[in-house]
Amino acid sequence: MTRSPAAARPTPATIASIAGEVGVSVTTVSKVLNGHSDVAADTRARVEESLERNGYRRRARRRPPAAQQIDLVFHEWNAGWAMEIIRGVQVVAAAANVGVTLSQLGGAHHPPSLWLDGVLARRPLGVLLVLCHLTEAQRRQLERRGIAFVVVDTDSAPDASVPTVGSNNWNGGLLAARHLLELGHRRIGVISGPRDVLCSRARIAGFRSAHDEAGVPVERELVRYGTFYVDAGYAYGTELLTRPDRPTAIFAGSDMQAMGVLRAARRLGLRVPEDLSVIGYDNLPMAAWLGPALTTVNQPLGDMAGTAARMLLDLARGAALPTSRVDLVTELVVRESTGPPG
Amino acid sequence: MTRSPAAARPTPATIASIAGEVGVSVTTVSKVLNGHSDVAADTRARVEESLERNGYRRRARRRPPAAQQIDLVFHEWNAGWAMEIIRGVQVVAAAANVGVTLSQLGGAHHPPSLWLDGVLARRPLGVLLVLCHLTEAQRRQLERRGIAFVVVDTDSAPDASVPTVGSNNWNGGLLAARHLLELGHRRIGVISGPRDVLCSRARIAGFRSAHDEAGVPVERELVRYGTFYVDAGYAYGTELLTRPDRPTAIFAGSDMQAMGVLRAARRLGLRVPEDLSVIGYDNLPMAAWLGPALTTVNQPLGDMAGTAARMLLDLARGAALPTSRVDLVTELVVRESTGPPG
Repeated sequence: MTRSPAAARPTPATIASIAGEVGVSVTTVSKVLNGHSDVAADTRARVEESLERNGYRRRARRRPPAAQQIDLVFHEWNAGWAMEIIRGVQVVAAAANVGVTLSQLGGAHHPPSLWLDGVLARRPLGVLLVLCHLTEAQRRQLERRGIAFVVVDTDSAPDASVPTVGSNNWNGGLLAARHLLELGHRRIGVISGPRDVLCSRARIAGFRSAHDEAGVPVERELVRYGTFYVDAGYAYGTELLTRPDRPTAIFAGSDMQAMGVLRAARRLGLRVPEDLSVIGYDNLPMAAWLGPALTTVNQPLGDMAGTAARMLLDLARGAALPTSRVDLVTELVVRESTGPPG
Repeated sequence: MTRSPAAARPTPATIASIAGEVGVSVTTVSKVLNGHSDVAADTRARVEESLERNGYRRRARRRPPAAQQIDLVFHEWNAGWAMEIIRGVQVVAAAANVGVTLSQLGGAHHPPSLWLDGVLARRPLGVLLVLCHLTEAQRRQLERRGIAFVVVDTDSAPDASVPTVGSNNWNGGLLAARHLLELGHRRIGVISGPRDVLCSRARIAGFRSAHDEAGVPVERELVRYGTFYVDAGYAYGTELLTRPDRPTAIFAGSDMQAMGVLRAARRLGLRVPEDLSVIGYDNLPMAAWLGPALTTVNQPLGDMAGTAARMLLDLARGAALPTSRVDLVTELVVRESTGPPG
């Protein structure tokens, strides 16, 4: 092992050197590092700035092993979906004897500073973010304290330097549309997630590609963007199915949405799959038990969460990741809700 | 304010006095208090014994406010059910700016010692146990460290000294059976949870009471005990519905079980509610979206969890609870899956 001569290396910043530079006490620097809220905002900013400029990195992990934990942060709750993620993380965390602390951001895409204070004070091994992202400043703050982070995001295109686990949404859209086209459907409605979420667009792009392959045009007026919840499926399903030229199949953005579509079809007296084929997305455990059992795109949420948790623990151990972006494969699970057009 | 004379009060035990008595260092006592695993088991036992005998109670809370958290412990995961509890706890915890650390015991009814080490090291404000219980020794260990605990249990009869939030299962069983009897059903099947779980027996007792009121005998061979999962509903549903004298209604032990019963009915070509009425239990969000929308007993899981979390935070603040046992009211939500017998 080669070591560069000591003279060539700058002296590493310490809490004392930072305190001296900023002109505050060691206690104050320590408080900032640990997220205590009783430091004036401007002092805090000056300390953070000095930590940043001096490349300060906390070295020793001071929590006893039994108290080690990771933070799991959701953009928002989404019953079935969140539970699959929690389960996947728990399996890996429990095996490593690491606790899991939950939070959710009530729909925000970046954690608030209050949340960050909690993280700094708890000193977890790392932070696992689901469908949400750290600001650049927050990333730096965690890095300085040696707190790792990994994102689970079904399909965003974050900075390549942020380790991310996703799944292949384009492929999911492709497989769903191919299945329906092969069954003979030519007018296929699609309800996707919000338009500003990249995964919605990726699925629609895959859906279009399958249509292109088959030489079937996608009818623009049969495409809807909504939330991933049941009521969006019910509302857009009703809208699509009451059109005079109603589609013979609907590809939903989630299993929850598909439940809403199934309910809309029942209300309108349409039988599934005889009068309408329905495909969901996610393959939540309940999909197999719906009436009819739902054909759906399996998005391996538990595996995605487990993979992300393992990456996080590896990073926390100081290991280098072989790759910072992992996309797990989606596949179609054919059950009872799809068939040839009536 | 009256104060008793100092002489009448025994000197409170301190870490130093315990260390002196046991003949170990202050560090060792501190390690035992904080769940460090690097203390020999017999030393640990001697320290615990001395802490117990001297009535040691940790006074100061030393975690910074931003790091305050509670531990939420599940007996096992149960997708929809657990998510409702997590949500209910999160709302209260987030408002108090307290983190929630999750764990689950893989089906065990008492936490293992490894789990307790984690709790002692994390030093949460309190521990909220769902369908699981502390051993007497574990309770004492938490008490000595000033860590509060509250149990969410749908219907056990724990020691009155353990603060518990439940719901009125007997009433749930009564309401479900009354509804079916009033619709004219006389042969009603019932699938309950495991026989060794008191809530299952309480619901069946309520179910029987409604039959007694109506002067209708309960047919013993139409009563089944199973797990609360979908597959139990499917298996027992199929068993009950293939009898020559099949019941005209089934009261399930959970909405998940009811989904299994609905599937069994579909498989057998029975229409709900024309040929079979089905009642679930819990009123999970998805119950309203099933086909047909499920009549079910609303067990206010979110409110139960929120009430328990508030009790826990009150205890952690040192407040006295007005009562240590709270049972929330269950009520029947009538939707589409019940009707008069065909």
